Amino acid sequence: MKIIVFHGSTRVNGNTEFLTYQAVPKEKGTHIYLRDYNVLPIIDQRHDEGGFNEVEDHHKGLIDQMLSHDIIVFSTPIYWYSMSGPMKLFIDRWSQILRDPAYVDFRKELSKKHVYLIAVGGDTPMVKGLPLVQQFNYICQFYNMSFEGYVIGKASKPGEITKDTAALKAASMLIK
Amino acid sequence: MKIIVFHGSTRVNGNTEFLTYQAVPKEKGTHIYLRDYNVLPIIDQRHDEGGFNEVEDHHKGLIDQMLSHDIIVFSTPIYWYSMSGPMKLFIDRWSQILRDPAYVDFRKELSKKHVYLIAVGGDTPMVKGLPLVQQFNYICQFYNMSFEGYVIGKASKPGEITKDTAALKAASMLIK
Amino acid sequence: MKIIVFHGSTRVNGNTEFLTYQAVPKEKGTHIYLRDYNVLPIIDQRHDEGGFNEVEDHHKGLIDQMLSHDIIVFSTPIYWYSMSGPMKLFIDRWSQILRDPAYVDFRKELSKKHVYLIAVGGDTPMVKGLPLVQQFNYICQFYNMSFEGYVIGKASKPGEITKDTAALKAASMLIK
Amino acid sequence: MKIIVFHGSTRVNGNTEFLTYQAVPKEKGTHIYLRDYNVLPIIDQRHDEGGFNEVEDHHKGLIDQMLSHDIIVFSTPIYWYSMSGPMKLFIDRWSQILRDPAYVDFRKELSKKHVYLIAVGGDTPMVKGLPLVQQFNYICQFYNMSFEGYVIGKASKPGEITKDTAALKAASMLIK
Repeated sequence: MKIIVFHGSTRVNGNTEFLTYQAVPKEKGTHIYLRDYNVLPIIDQRHDEGGFNEVEDHHKGLIDQMLSHDIIVFSTPIYWYSMSGPMKLFIDRWSQILRDPAYVDFRKELSKKHVYLIAVGGDTPMVKGLPLVQQFNYICQFYNMSFEGYVIGKASKPGEITKDTAALKAASMLIK
Repeated sequence: MKIIVFHGSTRVNGNTEFLTYQAVPKEKGTHIYLRDYNVLPIIDQRHDEGGFNEVEDHHKGLIDQMLSHDIIVFSTPIYWYSMSGPMKLFIDRWSQILRDPAYVDFRKELSKKHVYLIAVGGDTPMVKGLPLVQQFNYICQFYNMSFEGYVIGKASKPGEITKDTAALKAASMLIK
Repeated sequence: MKIIVFHGSTRVNGNTEFLTYQAVPKEKGTHIYLRDYNVLPIIDQRHDEGGFNEVEDHHKGLIDQMLSHDIIVFSTPIYWYSMSGPMKLFIDRWSQILRDPAYVDFRKELSKKHVYLIAVGGDTPMVKGLPLVQQFNYICQFYNMSFEGYVIGKASKPGEITKDTAALKAASMLIK
Repeated sequence: MKIIVFHGSTRVNGNTEFLTYQAVPKEKGTHIYLRDYNVLPIIDQRHDEGGFNEVEDHHKGLIDQMLSHDIIVFSTPIYWYSMSGPMKLFIDRWSQILRDPAYVDFRKELSKKHVYLIAVGGDTPMVKGLPLVQQFNYICQFYNMSFEGYVIGKASKPGEITKDTAALKAASMLIK
């Protein structure tokens, strides 16, 4: 089972990354740091006559990477009780992929994937991170992906995640 | 009470806009279409020595507009069970404003605002839109803004919102 | 389409009842006031050798009534952010019905029903009532019932619901 | 710090109990099995002239026990995506305690408590148990109790919880 991790953090070596490495060590699996790629916001052209315009950015390359793995880990700091902007931009554009003739099997391919979520927040994330979990669950449902589990960590300042020993332990046991 | 509406849709005259005009007619209040502005994703530099770099885009102008009104309406299509990317980018950057010496009263100013949410989705939004409502509630809590109400509409194809008569009625009664 | 309403309130002519009558007038449909019936808490004997003991109370009569209608409306005051105790007792016992040889088609029969929820609370119910909505949604999913809609009203003191004009209007438009 | 556990399960030695003993061993703390007590459903008489009638059952004794401890653990199987009926009955009656002259400090006393939740369900509890978590969070907010954490386990058949090693580990680390 090949693992790919999408890191949504905009800060290098942040708390979310640290927690994620407990689940998927750096040297294991494919680690994609979305901050290193250019992904433009979707423009909803689903109902335009000509459909979506081609977009010149890194999105399709990331999609191809995703599709070539079996397990997808979404790792995001909690920004305003939701996933980070870069991760939102990445996922929003899936609507465009769904209409792309080059990806007619997108939905079917995704239905074979196992998905995990790792999220870290500073403001009572064990409760206020739950809508984020529910959203990922709905995304998985839409594509019939198997949502296998999640870990929520609590941290705000750099390094603080090391104090959340329960989250670290849970992350180390996350991927089955 | 001055009203400002932030439209998160990337499609002109879409369902979300239509529903929103039932609450705040086009000629009433200030309507901001986020798709017409350039707002870059936040780069989390909260913990950098020098703090945040200045960003050359429209964000501060939008913040100034927001602060000069009493009622804020967030109007967003539901993209993957959450707010649209452009709206997420707009709100993510509030973290930067919070550290900006030019906006020391940002939190205090926001605490005087009344907030409404209008969201439209195609996939059982009455249930799957609820995490989005909960997130906006947490955002309001953080800033001590008063979350006055929300309307969720159901629509996917252009014009379909006109069939959701309950949502249209609710929107027309939303702002107190 | 025959309508049955299960009223979970323990107070006669309370706010929840008032709101519910906007959706289903007293003289229309079958109104069951759970407070007038004796329903004992479930004792989980799913894994007992002999299965469940027979229980002498009104539960089966209520189930029979429910099954003979097409539309089920659950009307409950929000007690501690969830449905009322009497309604919880009523639904908990469905686990026993599921194992009852006299109700082998229980799940299949329920899958034909349309379900609505009407809930009234005093403590910011528009937000704090949402977990209750989500729970009813999961119940409907389990039985493959169609969860058609819900209305949340705000009221605490007797009669206060009359001020929530938006909820009254929404209730009057609820049943399609 | 004195610990009390309220067990909501109606089955002796069930999965929820097993998981709970990882957090609070049987010989440690006070274990209350609600199934062994008689607690009647609340009748909402908050707005009756004479207030609530006295109720002859075990409720006040349980409240007294609760108040004499510092840490409260609510342990419940997930019945229809919510707490068990016996636990709901127990908590519903707090509304009566709030109006009882013998408990004028009820709210203030509870505000000193630390609360944990342990829940076990069979139907994707990691997601479908979240509304239950949110409800407990709201209950804690109401009383200004500190909601310290929760563990959700997955199990349906007797003994199955032993396979959820992540939940067992999390429970063992739950109480700080």
